[in-house]
Amino acid sequence: MIVAVVGGGQLARMMAPAATALGITLRVLVESEQASAALAAHEIVVGMPSDPDAVRRLLAEPRPDVVTWEHEHIPAEVFAACAEAGVPARPDAGALLHAQDKIAMRTRLDALGLPNPLWCEVASLEDVADFLAEAGGRAVVKTARGGYDGKGVRVVTHPEQVADWLEAIGDGGPRLLAEEAVDFDRELAIQVARRPSGEIRTWPVVESIQRDGVCSEVIAPAPGFSALAQREVEHLAEVIATKLDVTGVLAVELFQAGERILVNELAMRPHNSGHWSIDGSVTSQFEQHLRAVLDLPLGDTTPTAAVTVMANVLGGAREDLPAALAQVTDPRAKVHLYGKEVRAGRKVGHVSVTGDDVDEVCRRAVAAAAIVRDGL
Amino acid sequence: MIVAVVGGGQLARMMAPAATALGITLRVLVESEQASAALAAHEIVVGMPSDPDAVRRLLAEPRPDVVTWEHEHIPAEVFAACAEAGVPARPDAGALLHAQDKIAMRTRLDALGLPNPLWCEVASLEDVADFLAEAGGRAVVKTARGGYDGKGVRVVTHPEQVADWLEAIGDGGPRLLAEEAVDFDRELAIQVARRPSGEIRTWPVVESIQRDGVCSEVIAPAPGFSALAQREVEHLAEVIATKLDVTGVLAVELFQAGERILVNELAMRPHNSGHWSIDGSVTSQFEQHLRAVLDLPLGDTTPTAAVTVMANVLGGAREDLPAALAQVTDPRAKVHLYGKEVRAGRKVGHVSVTGDDVDEVCRRAVAAAAIVRDGL
Repeated sequence: MIVAVVGGGQLARMMAPAATALGITLRVLVESEQASAALAAHEIVVGMPSDPDAVRRLLAEPRPDVVTWEHEHIPAEVFAACAEAGVPARPDAGALLHAQDKIAMRTRLDALGLPNPLWCEVASLEDVADFLAEAGGRAVVKTARGGYDGKGVRVVTHPEQVADWLEAIGDGGPRLLAEEAVDFDRELAIQVARRPSGEIRTWPVVESIQRDGVCSEVIAPAPGFSALAQREVEHLAEVIATKLDVTGVLAVELFQAGERILVNELAMRPHNSGHWSIDGSVTSQFEQHLRAVLDLPLGDTTPTAAVTVMANVLGGAREDLPAALAQVTDPRAKVHLYGKEVRAGRKVGHVSVTGDDVDEVCRRAVAAAAIVRDGL
Repeated sequence: MIVAVVGGGQLARMMAPAATALGITLRVLVESEQASAALAAHEIVVGMPSDPDAVRRLLAEPRPDVVTWEHEHIPAEVFAACAEAGVPARPDAGALLHAQDKIAMRTRLDALGLPNPLWCEVASLEDVADFLAEAGGRAVVKTARGGYDGKGVRVVTHPEQVADWLEAIGDGGPRLLAEEAVDFDRELAIQVARRPSGEIRTWPVVESIQRDGVCSEVIAPAPGFSALAQREVEHLAEVIATKLDVTGVLAVELFQAGERILVNELAMRPHNSGHWSIDGSVTSQFEQHLRAVLDLPLGDTTPTAAVTVMANVLGGAREDLPAALAQVTDPRAKVHLYGKEVRAGRKVGHVSVTGDDVDEVCRRAVAAAAIVRDGL
């Protein structure tokens, strides 16, 4: 059984241990032999998804049973090549569109009656001015495509703050949308897995703490989130997965603002907000993604601990990350390193800690991540 | 950070996911490219430990930080090559001797005052007859070296039953020892990890259920085993690890006969009786072995569930093992396949299930393993 993955980052890398356990061969299209997934993958094809020859080698005999993605930047030609080779692409182009294009996503959620923030496509300074007037003078303008980790997102109070983006549209730049700047209490996320034959499983709703537009910590489950609210958000995630015909793991990022729960973004792959599941759930999002895209029975998503906290390690003072293993003396700190060259602010690893007390577990995870990043 | 492993079986294979998470490169000396560990390892060297050229390549630049073993059959020349290359071998030859040679092990345990069954080296029919007379007419005769999974072990009531082995001694065959046939209530095992700087951590004592001389199921923790008895066995394991200067993971297989706890065998590596720890402990024996041989801080060994049962999958009717993944519908069944060609009775995988009720968890693990082996 062979799963082909497009993209060689840490998400592909973390599929490898799950594939090894299941006896599945993981064949990864990596950008270079230094890619995060290159050493861990069972087979690699070096090349870009835009390179037809690389894609051909990814799909070569023995043919993979399925092709999946570890990011959204998949050219249409890749789907065509999969179809020609008779290899299912999961999620398929129709589903993935909603993770690639925020206007498509917002439009579809509106059509389904699901909770979007106030939003509108904007193509001119007038559009932005109109939206600002409607939204209380402050808005978040986003590129419909290509953004990640705070890139392609600007908080604006004056239309001129996105004049360059508006101008770029005429030159083939991405379309833009404006969203209300939600005055949220916190950010949440939920992972849901769905297989083609329809089986669906969700994990508990988690709280995601962002710093500078990048996820810093994830607390699973989200503290103080009622069983009723959990059911509501599970239902929301299940509706999105089903109506958008998502296969594999879907991450739904959410805002909680008082009683309101609003959809922020969708990712159709394992996601940073689900890394806690490696150490804190019976089935990790990486194993579940492999199961789901292969249309295998899904695994139990029950947490194995009262609380799990995942703290990201962003590139900092330390260059030789494995050397950190000698300094992290907390026996409950589960260190995950991505084999990436350290650059300031780049996600290069994470640490998860499980336990009973959320404050203590948070403190320990953050402390261990800080040691990995910068040393003692 | 590079760990070199001699031996390409499933024990080396299962070190790979742990190494990937820690950002450690696992370089494995595999017998062939079809070896269990070959696809999962980060780097492979194809060859036998008896081949000096293969060992040279295993130790080549970039030099591994440490060399370790996934079986006991390590020629003395390998230790010499490690010493010459300046790469620590862990466990070292002095420690590993006690897992290679049962006479050395029994002799050493006697010297330490640790609980051996009645035993004696035997070299002639008279020796065996004398031992049988002393031991009540029934004994277990073992080859001091080379046995595994019931091989190299015979239960005898007459000396002639091992006449061929006795004769072989003169032709360079292994020395023999006779042990009392312990009328045990059950078999137990404990894993302990020790790093060169002295830190030690044990897992809970487990019950190991054997069929035809091969481990069938492991129940963790061993049901009905008191905290006092746990402490006693932990102490026993810690004394063995310390006095024999073991580094890495040590498995101590035990007999429980009423109030008596007797040492059966030692293994200085991850061991079948510890596979449950992948899914049932904060730190698996595979991660802990890597940590221990690298002299890194050891991880917490607390179970993540009230009970974990591991059921081995021996080769049976099914040839395409990954096809079993579609048939195992128990969402709590954690399936581990070793990527080995199926042969009757060969260990080709295992299934672990966690839960609260030992009978239910046992039943589910055994049922899932049976589906993997033979189909529905």
